[in-house]
Amino acid sequence: MISPLLTDLYQLTMAYGYWKLGIHDREAVFHQIFRKNPFGGRYTIACGLATAIDFLKGWHFTTDDVDYLQHLRAPNNEPLFSREFLTYLSTLRFTCDVDAVPEGTLVFPHEPLIRIKGPLLQAQLVESTLLNIINFQSLIATKASRVCQAAQGEPVLEFGMRRAQGPDGALSASRAAYLGGCAATSNVLAGKLYGIPVQGTHAHSWVTAFPSEIAAFSAYASVMPQNCVLLVDTYDTIQGVKNAIEIGKQLRENGAELRGIRLDSGDLASLSMKARKLLDEAGFSATKIIASNSLDEYVIADLKKKGAQISVWGVGTNLTTAYDHPALDGVYKLSAIRDEQGKWQYKLKLSEQAVKVSNPGIYQVRRFFAKEQCIMDIMYDEELGVSKIPEMVSLDAPHTTTSPSGFDASLDLLVPVFRQGKYVYPQESIHHMRERAIQQVTQFLKVRREKIYPVGLEKGLHDIKQRLIAEVSAKNDVRRK
Amino acid sequence: MISPLLTDLYQLTMAYGYWKLGIHDREAVFHQIFRKNPFGGRYTIACGLATAIDFLKGWHFTTDDVDYLQHLRAPNNEPLFSREFLTYLSTLRFTCDVDAVPEGTLVFPHEPLIRIKGPLLQAQLVESTLLNIINFQSLIATKASRVCQAAQGEPVLEFGMRRAQGPDGALSASRAAYLGGCAATSNVLAGKLYGIPVQGTHAHSWVTAFPSEIAAFSAYASVMPQNCVLLVDTYDTIQGVKNAIEIGKQLRENGAELRGIRLDSGDLASLSMKARKLLDEAGFSATKIIASNSLDEYVIADLKKKGAQISVWGVGTNLTTAYDHPALDGVYKLSAIRDEQGKWQYKLKLSEQAVKVSNPGIYQVRRFFAKEQCIMDIMYDEELGVSKIPEMVSLDAPHTTTSPSGFDASLDLLVPVFRQGKYVYPQESIHHMRERAIQQVTQFLKVRREKIYPVGLEKGLHDIKQRLIAEVSAKNDVRRK
Repeated sequence: MISPLLTDLYQLTMAYGYWKLGIHDREAVFHQIFRKNPFGGRYTIACGLATAIDFLKGWHFTTDDVDYLQHLRAPNNEPLFSREFLTYLSTLRFTCDVDAVPEGTLVFPHEPLIRIKGPLLQAQLVESTLLNIINFQSLIATKASRVCQAAQGEPVLEFGMRRAQGPDGALSASRAAYLGGCAATSNVLAGKLYGIPVQGTHAHSWVTAFPSEIAAFSAYASVMPQNCVLLVDTYDTIQGVKNAIEIGKQLRENGAELRGIRLDSGDLASLSMKARKLLDEAGFSATKIIASNSLDEYVIADLKKKGAQISVWGVGTNLTTAYDHPALDGVYKLSAIRDEQGKWQYKLKLSEQAVKVSNPGIYQVRRFFAKEQCIMDIMYDEELGVSKIPEMVSLDAPHTTTSPSGFDASLDLLVPVFRQGKYVYPQESIHHMRERAIQQVTQFLKVRREKIYPVGLEKGLHDIKQRLIAEVSAKNDVRRK
Repeated sequence: MISPLLTDLYQLTMAYGYWKLGIHDREAVFHQIFRKNPFGGRYTIACGLATAIDFLKGWHFTTDDVDYLQHLRAPNNEPLFSREFLTYLSTLRFTCDVDAVPEGTLVFPHEPLIRIKGPLLQAQLVESTLLNIINFQSLIATKASRVCQAAQGEPVLEFGMRRAQGPDGALSASRAAYLGGCAATSNVLAGKLYGIPVQGTHAHSWVTAFPSEIAAFSAYASVMPQNCVLLVDTYDTIQGVKNAIEIGKQLRENGAELRGIRLDSGDLASLSMKARKLLDEAGFSATKIIASNSLDEYVIADLKKKGAQISVWGVGTNLTTAYDHPALDGVYKLSAIRDEQGKWQYKLKLSEQAVKVSNPGIYQVRRFFAKEQCIMDIMYDEELGVSKIPEMVSLDAPHTTTSPSGFDASLDLLVPVFRQGKYVYPQESIHHMRERAIQQVTQFLKVRREKIYPVGLEKGLHDIKQRLIAEVSAKNDVRRK
């Protein structure tokens, strides 16, 4: 259970401010979006919703939490929060509407992954936690998808716990890596908590614990004849392969098979080819070669190009930390709030960069398809609606308007998850989400070729945004640049 | 409480193997080391021990854990673990000796951060979790130290939860960032759990929730007069500063002060200078300028060089994910095991790279000082001992021998933490660890100038290692390269 205190202090000071001003229950809408596909890639996979759902279901401040908050002091040493406010906090339960993109769905920059609509104070307080959960899991699911694409359908095993960013950096990563396409994890707790497959055999320490490598292999085969994958590089890889073959022969005499060998250092392309040759010549053509050691999508693609004879890929640190791009740049922005008369006021934050100006409204994403292939995503305002063949204004090129010509189907990406705090979303298995991710990515990469997939605002929403930019600029004396 | 299942499956299959072979209780020694200072830097700060202690204190397999393990299957669909083994697991408690480097201590590549001595099976099973905890926290403490050094003593606030790697990626990072030198975190749960200072005021959404920026500032000042730091870049930074000054005047009329303004976008050097000028001219020279937006040690150093008028630094993603080097390369190696006769057998793993050959023995690190400044670290074997003025063989240049000439003090870095599973380490406050880190780093950077601080093996241990390399190579038919 994730504590509601896993939030930034400013969320609580803002909440206190809203409460003191009596606007805490005013209905507001926030969206979580990200601005750039990670890894210089062309897509992102939505992930983390199940964890976010658990968080929101259990969201309440315990007596312990409130006791802690009561001890916080302002710079003048007065209590930071009043006792009345803390009493109010302790009675709070989550009563917002939540709409979100199902996990495993392909998403693109500026599209909302989750939308929260409800009392301003609540929607504000959950911001940091939702960002934390969804940013990280979407990042790792995307990385895993890229690695699995490079492996061209061969199994990728996630091995990254030991250098992941903390216990949950490992756990969340194992979940997201499986969802993004990995075949299994080495993380036993992730196996238990998320029902995902776990794999593993032995490490170098097994080998060094015995007087020699052949003694260590022999001991391993004797106790684990049905699950025998031997790590061959503790002392010398090629000699290790030869030792493994000897053990393979002994296993066979006892009716078992050497399942695999694992290479964990050196020139994996050349070593795997030599190992394959040795194994084949000795009659072990069914024995798999597993490789690990600083792998990622680039190294795997390169090894494949060089003709490496590897059929299972163990990927660790580079996957679980998303080493080359370790954070998704997700943000959570207020986009609408009711005024005193109950009328929606649309909101945005300005920026010198057009692409960083947030989008106003209560928005939804409609994905258009032609022959089961997505061709365009249009963000529209739910209050405003959308015409049958809408006009789309690209975020990158706001002066051109296009339409999803030739579409034969469409789908709204955000689906109801909570209604007034009540959970209304059907349970989905992680295996199903994983299938969705694999299917959508494979289909997308097969057909779409452009660097940037077409995403934009529905014309009506675009016009509202432009009017709002002008209004806000005037009202706040924004200097013309 | 961290579950013992937060481990790699191969630790459990090896444990099962040791148990089946009846060698699970044989006494063994493992060390956790890392191979390279992160961030291309010259030092690392040891961090994470308190979390590791909590893990080891609570280490046991629950009925639930064992039930899960009982359902795992080998490839031939037989149970992966026998019922007898699982019963044994469920009765296990941690009974090892643990020695570790106190948190906040400066450490260098190849030095053990933690040493586990005890039953082979137990010492093996805790490997992945210890690596996970200590790798990540040491990484972040080191990053925080670097950022704080760049800020030259000005307060650095850690703001990184929203893009950290999962809930614990945030929590562990907040703890380690404070220990490494940060002044406070925005992470409220970290404040509660670790007793570290929390800070924060308001976000852009506060500003957009009101009809205009000046209305938002005025509302904030009215409800939070004693903790008023205004974020000025929602619409236009300079206009925002002017609005903040107006509010500062109103605050002053009511006996309060504008504590600060925060810049979160744009050219921070130039904006901060303009803001400082406006504030000073209006009589607000005590109002601090806080800056945030993709800061790290390099950006801070650059801003200082440009004369930026910033006195508090809010650092987020780049700190909590260690963005430019998101994993410490720690490993955990078996270095000694008793044979059937109870005699210690020293162990190592070979590698084509000399620096990756692990060190044998039961080792300790002695740090030598001259005038309170560390001058050399020597790793020696506890069984072998060390002479009063030892000879040190550098790991990087194994053909030269040096001694810590002129030293006037020395200190063994590993201190007892557990004895036969009993916790024997005095509790230390995190504030004390933080002081240690700040003091050691400041002292080190003031005096030491070399790229690589002198660390090596005591001559006797070096000789043992060389003999062992020859023996192991002969026994395992390692090809000469």
